[in-house]
Amino acid sequence: MSEIAYVNGNYAPIAEARVSILDRGFLFADGVYEVAAVIGGRLIDNGAHLARLERSLRELRIDSPLPMARIADVEAEIVARNGMDEGLVYLQITRGAAADRDFGFPADVAPSLVAFAQKKNITGSPAAETGVKVLTVPDLRWARRDIKSTALLAQVLAKQAAVEGGCQEAWMVDQDGFVTEGSSSTAFILTETNVLITRPNSTAILPGCTRNAVQLIAKRQGLDVEERRFSVAEACAAKEAFLTSASNLVLPVVSIDGRRIGDGAPGDTSRLLRRLYIEWATNAAGAG
Amino acid sequence: MSEIAYVNGNYAPIAEARVSILDRGFLFADGVYEVAAVIGGRLIDNGAHLARLERSLRELRIDSPLPMARIADVEAEIVARNGMDEGLVYLQITRGAAADRDFGFPADVAPSLVAFAQKKNITGSPAAETGVKVLTVPDLRWARRDIKSTALLAQVLAKQAAVEGGCQEAWMVDQDGFVTEGSSSTAFILTETNVLITRPNSTAILPGCTRNAVQLIAKRQGLDVEERRFSVAEACAAKEAFLTSASNLVLPVVSIDGRRIGDGAPGDTSRLLRRLYIEWATNAAGAG
Repeated sequence: MSEIAYVNGNYAPIAEARVSILDRGFLFADGVYEVAAVIGGRLIDNGAHLARLERSLRELRIDSPLPMARIADVEAEIVARNGMDEGLVYLQITRGAAADRDFGFPADVAPSLVAFAQKKNITGSPAAETGVKVLTVPDLRWARRDIKSTALLAQVLAKQAAVEGGCQEAWMVDQDGFVTEGSSSTAFILTETNVLITRPNSTAILPGCTRNAVQLIAKRQGLDVEERRFSVAEACAAKEAFLTSASNLVLPVVSIDGRRIGDGAPGDTSRLLRRLYIEWATNAAGAG
Repeated sequence: MSEIAYVNGNYAPIAEARVSILDRGFLFADGVYEVAAVIGGRLIDNGAHLARLERSLRELRIDSPLPMARIADVEAEIVARNGMDEGLVYLQITRGAAADRDFGFPADVAPSLVAFAQKKNITGSPAAETGVKVLTVPDLRWARRDIKSTALLAQVLAKQAAVEGGCQEAWMVDQDGFVTEGSSSTAFILTETNVLITRPNSTAILPGCTRNAVQLIAKRQGLDVEERRFSVAEACAAKEAFLTSASNLVLPVVSIDGRRIGDGAPGDTSRLLRRLYIEWATNAAGAG
């Protein structure tokens, strides 16, 4: 964790970065967030992240405390003040702190904006070499998973179940028996016939920014990309599997519920897409 | 909103009562809460609230920062320092502020405890005389509604829809077509044959403390009490309807989705149960 955070107009050491206990982010999870990767001191695919942030705010009718261009300035300032070469910038906007606690939207309350940095080795992550293990868990979440809200308790429990099961990520499975997504990532599989599969966007999943970019890169590479639901059984029988997220880019999945995927090592296509994503992210097209 | 709040061992003016932006209550809704009524300066049915708090913590494996008896002391101190005769005491416990943001449970992090007071006219609420209007909305919540977590965004949206529909409460309707509960209250109906109906406890609803007490009081009064699911259609055709919660005690419902319940005025049984609940709450049995 880096040292300088942003809270409602002020930059301060993270240890002093505080919000009111009446902030609706704290009382009601009445807020949204974004996480963008930083590589070589530059924010990656940040236009897509800010577009999704705007959409989340619109869906919840939370006013943005700043225009998106000014929020991008805050992010850049967080990168600069923390001297960050590689890592993440976290942004959260809540409906603000009203004078009283009441479920309905408060009148005339300024939304809160918080940002901080997390230094992290992203491009050189050891997990990219070893691959990660996935545990499947029931998807307990609410009906509007397309909104990137901070009501993340189900994801917390899913990730914790994965960790306790010796895994690095949980893939959540809906009542229909199909995988929705990871607790903090998008789920992809590659079939034996080299078709790349991921679930279509809907209210059942978060529209992943890295997911979108990876799909485009895969298509440009001549891969067949199909958006449809897939079951745990199909995933376990896949040739390859991987996950995507801003903080993990592309990470090969080498087992699901203890069943080995492919030969149990990161697959060639997963490795290729990771490499191509990093190339894309670090050239002019991906940055900004 | 009264002035003195409690945050992790310290009493401070509410305007200075703050938590870290890394608190998992703020970042992940990784916390639970309780609201207890205060009447005549005494906490009402607080043993039931603290038992539910303990259960919520256990389900999420959050350690309590204090024994329940010490938490009750904090609540009493909040009542005393705010000179509160009537109102609410709000308590929230989160998994605390870790040094870094990560979905899984952090190691060696102290949970956070926050408490504050809301002065409010509870026993003399004008809504008890006029009754309240209810709007039904789809229940968008997650699968563990029995845990009183702060992941309340679906309830926020439900309550806001009610307010914008000219109503005071939303009753949430599950995919099965049955009412689950209010956005911050339990739903009851009284049939034409004088049977009091409320949904049985399960993971689909919060086990209401006031709900339980009102059921006991109703039974003692010789009323038939049945725990089963009911539809919006059945509720609209009911002789009476009411809601229960710590902050509203018992409040008659006079319309649902614009359809008048009974003759459109608070029903006799609803009024009786409110009176008996207040009697119970303010005698030795209900207090503490």
